[in-house]
Amino acid sequence: MNDRLSAQLAFLTEADKLKSVYRATNVLDGHRKEDSGSHSWHIALYAMILSEHAKTNINIDRVIRMLLIHDLVEIDVGDSPIHGDHDIAAMEAAESAAADRIFGLLPSDQASAMRTLWDEFEAAESDDAVFAKSIDRVQPVVGNLETNGGTWPEYNVTKQQLEDRVGWKVAKGAPAIWDHLKTRIAKWFSENG
Amino acid sequence: MNDRLSAQLAFLTEADKLKSVYRATNVLDGHRKEDSGSHSWHIALYAMILSEHAKTNINIDRVIRMLLIHDLVEIDVGDSPIHGDHDIAAMEAAESAAADRIFGLLPSDQASAMRTLWDEFEAAESDDAVFAKSIDRVQPVVGNLETNGGTWPEYNVTKQQLEDRVGWKVAKGAPAIWDHLKTRIAKWFSENG
Ligand SMILES: [Ca+2]
Repeated sequence: MNDRLSAQLAFLTEADKLKSVYRATNVLDGHRKEDSGSHSWHIALYAMILSEHAKTNINIDRVIRMLLIHDLVEIDVGDSPIHGDHDIAAMEAAESAAADRIFGLLPSDQASAMRTLWDEFEAAESDDAVFAKSIDRVQPVVGNLETNGGTWPEYNVTKQQLEDRVGWKVAKGAPAIWDHLKTRIAKWFSENG
Repeated sequence: MNDRLSAQLAFLTEADKLKSVYRATNVLDGHRKEDSGSHSWHIALYAMILSEHAKTNINIDRVIRMLLIHDLVEIDVGDSPIHGDHDIAAMEAAESAAADRIFGLLPSDQASAMRTLWDEFEAAESDDAVFAKSIDRVQPVVGNLETNGGTWPEYNVTKQQLEDRVGWKVAKGAPAIWDHLKTRIAKWFSENG
């Protein structure tokens, strides 16, 4: 037996639980809610395909790694829909405890590297983290646009809320993408809002 | 509107369908079959965490990219369980047509880069592809071990079949991982086989 490998496989087995954390959004064919495992895959792919639209000079491989681990804390704390109301401080404390526990399953050098990468994502200050956050925000918008508004009616989302809660975050890391989506969003709300 | 971005978002929207392709294996808590989107996320994470066990000098970032796109063809052809019987030539032709269609949604430079990367994975000859294939094979084995044999009884899988169909492929790219698992597999089959 190999202790290092045992710890790594224990972490990877724990990570499987992210496939059982469900988000507010459906997969696009509507047959089920989207799980956070699938979501993590999809936005890593988004980042890879859309990296040329980053506002700054990012390291796309670091962004992809960040996105692969960004939602693992949801195993303990669940997904917080962007349009819900939350006690931010309590949520951040719970997420931090979850990160301690989950990354702590890894051998200590990797635990520390993954925790540092996750902290960078959460801080949303570095160029890589800003782009990663932009991509994380943009996927549900694209999904809702592609499915005739998707869950917007259910959550009573307005065009102004999208601008206030999503728009500037997407624009901060990937302005060309938000420019493109803004036009499509305006069109949808003028027809359905 | 931005034609390049439209093509990229059309590809990313099409990719969403991978969340509705189901594999033979369950997610570990057993509440549903695993989808190929979640699986793709999980093995990209596997690769990232286990890269030190690669037999050769790999580029882990290329491996991760390869794994993020490796199953997209399943949107058209479905998942082929490793322990089923198949017409290999017909399956390869169908997968190749699927790759043409799906990667073909991207702007031509990206379509060609993604297709080349997928072809490299399928050929399983480069160091990066050999390691990626090892990781793709190892995840279900770990999952089944962690859930008391998982789907092995249902598919009447024997220890010898695991050696013949999985073992040498894992060992080719990541011998230390197979060494570790072999011991645990032997123990499970001696107790349950
Ligand atoms: Ca997310």
